Amino acid sequence: MTMRKFFRCAILVSCLAVSSVAFAEPIILETQGSFAVGGTTVTHDGEFSMEHFTAPEGQTAYGDHAYVFYQIPVNAKKFPMVFQHGAAQTKRTWETTPDGREGFQNLFLRKGFSVYLVDQPRRGEAGLSTVPPEADNPYAHNPMYANRTLFTLPRLGIYPNLFPNSQFPKDEESLNQFMRAWTVDTGALDFEVAADAMSKLIDKIGESILVTHSMGGTIGWRTPLRTEKVKAIVAYEPGGSPFLFPEDGMPEPVPTAYGAVAAMSIPAKDFEKLTKMPIIIYYGDNIASEPTTEVGPDQWRGELEMAKKFVKVINERGGDATLVHLPEIGIKGNTHFLMGDLNNAELVDLLAKWLAEKGLD
Amino acid sequence: MTMRKFFRCAILVSCLAVSSVAFAEPIILETQGSFAVGGTTVTHDGEFSMEHFTAPEGQTAYGDHAYVFYQIPVNAKKFPMVFQHGAAQTKRTWETTPDGREGFQNLFLRKGFSVYLVDQPRRGEAGLSTVPPEADNPYAHNPMYANRTLFTLPRLGIYPNLFPNSQFPKDEESLNQFMRAWTVDTGALDFEVAADAMSKLIDKIGESILVTHSMGGTIGWRTPLRTEKVKAIVAYEPGGSPFLFPEDGMPEPVPTAYGAVAAMSIPAKDFEKLTKMPIIIYYGDNIASEPTTEVGPDQWRGELEMAKKFVKVINERGGDATLVHLPEIGIKGNTHFLMGDLNNAELVDLLAKWLAEKGLD
Repeated sequence: MTMRKFFRCAILVSCLAVSSVAFAEPIILETQGSFAVGGTTVTHDGEFSMEHFTAPEGQTAYGDHAYVFYQIPVNAKKFPMVFQHGAAQTKRTWETTPDGREGFQNLFLRKGFSVYLVDQPRRGEAGLSTVPPEADNPYAHNPMYANRTLFTLPRLGIYPNLFPNSQFPKDEESLNQFMRAWTVDTGALDFEVAADAMSKLIDKIGESILVTHSMGGTIGWRTPLRTEKVKAIVAYEPGGSPFLFPEDGMPEPVPTAYGAVAAMSIPAKDFEKLTKMPIIIYYGDNIASEPTTEVGPDQWRGELEMAKKFVKVINERGGDATLVHLPEIGIKGNTHFLMGDLNNAELVDLLAKWLAEKGLD
Repeated sequence: MTMRKFFRCAILVSCLAVSSVAFAEPIILETQGSFAVGGTTVTHDGEFSMEHFTAPEGQTAYGDHAYVFYQIPVNAKKFPMVFQHGAAQTKRTWETTPDGREGFQNLFLRKGFSVYLVDQPRRGEAGLSTVPPEADNPYAHNPMYANRTLFTLPRLGIYPNLFPNSQFPKDEESLNQFMRAWTVDTGALDFEVAADAMSKLIDKIGESILVTHSMGGTIGWRTPLRTEKVKAIVAYEPGGSPFLFPEDGMPEPVPTAYGAVAAMSIPAKDFEKLTKMPIIIYYGDNIASEPTTEVGPDQWRGELEMAKKFVKVINERGGDATLVHLPEIGIKGNTHFLMGDLNNAELVDLLAKWLAEKGLD
């Protein structure tokens, strides 16, 4: 018996020895770690001097990389899952729920998937940027006065009340945790920079399932334009950022109470790349079916309508895209943050079933 | 057999089934998760209107909390280890090393300690702040032109060369990873705010071993003034922030080439709290023994001298503080980022031995 095997057995025996203790099943990791991927540098003119060693002259700034925290369970499934958060969020999106339950990170690890959580460039643990944030970006400057915005837009309810069927937890501390999970942009929001880092990550780790949320959707759509290793895209409530359409199949913008939901044109040949992999898109509940002045339900009415056009054009061109509007299959009350909702384990099972159907587990 | 036990056994069997495969021993977690702790809110005057739903009027900003990612191994030791990073860093400090080896996070998990990694308020995943950053803070604004500063101050070497005996990995990609592990302050740097959040964390999780790095040292010294649950403090190269001294035992500042290393006075009665727990302080190599114009070696000469005074006054007042200057015990070449150095596993063993001696494992 090698030393390595000996230690392995010792760990398992010690694990067995406590198996009568009543806690949840353990998460057994082969390894875990973190790294930066992608990014650029920019050098200031002038000459460095030790007398002014914190001055910019002659120094180089690093930035624009993504930060990645990965966990690989023993006996991991073939394709890792890579998680891209949305606007003003970080990888925190996929971690513990506001009420302290396990998030998608743990739930997919427990299903045997390797999990890669990304902080997009200029955000969270990837805070270095070679360009400053835009002055008029409301999510780039502290203090970020936004508790109403962040209650309304994610469709928790009509402030201060949750929607009657809301899957958001009802206690005060959950709302506190939810409000503290946001963060600021530390540089200009640039989807191309984010997609560059994301595609470099997937090139590095190999064929992957890419899971996006909200504004992160557009990073997901842009990634297969840069790498052939995206095996599937799963988008939770994509929106707040443009869907890509072929230049010869552009849709009309969808007007909403506070501006139109627009699409972005790309060459038809590039768009074809989005027809080469299965895509599934999920939307939750309390999205208006008719125009309304409540911005959350109305904004997502527009995004949902645009998503339907997006799915249609993909499928017309030979792709395999599915849109699931959850209330239509009997899953009610989901907010924009489905991964933290009370029924998040049900949503994980739903996605796992789809991945199995597509031969991806 | 309960269902829970059944699943537990199934996992162990599947784990045993692959035990002939040659990978490292698994990390077996009872659970893991994240949350925000501490923090404040501030409300903007005016009235919220749905027409301008991103405007600050009438909205509340959340901020000043810490972010915590925790992992609890099965059969965890009694006292968790809580890790506080230094200046312009995040919990990334304790994760994977620049050359991709396991950091303190994994190494202490493997030794059976629960590990709590903290992003201090206004940093990383705790990016929300109720006050903006200081205009003149060089680590609060992008682009952060600082590659020379961040080579020099952490004593990697004399730019662009590593010190001959440096424990920093010699390949180019390691330097790239190191440079991308920094981040910006997203609000004013405030040690009291950080210590408030830290003490709330330790009050929440119970008696803990607090491990700090660099500027985080001062957060460590301030925490026992707020909670009685700090069982020990381990400080890696505290500095760049004031040591606390009793008002009736203030030391002279230590002059260095670029300013003096100062101390901060607190009431003697408060200082007594630092005599109630074992404290160990580690410093690495290539710290000047005489004044020099190279800022890294000179700055840490000053900090090391102040640390010696700090240890002396603690012990004079009945405390239990130890300072280990690693080269003096034959451990050579460590940079300021000891936890990422080539010999980091040796340093983990060294600390584990001390914790055992103090009855803390």
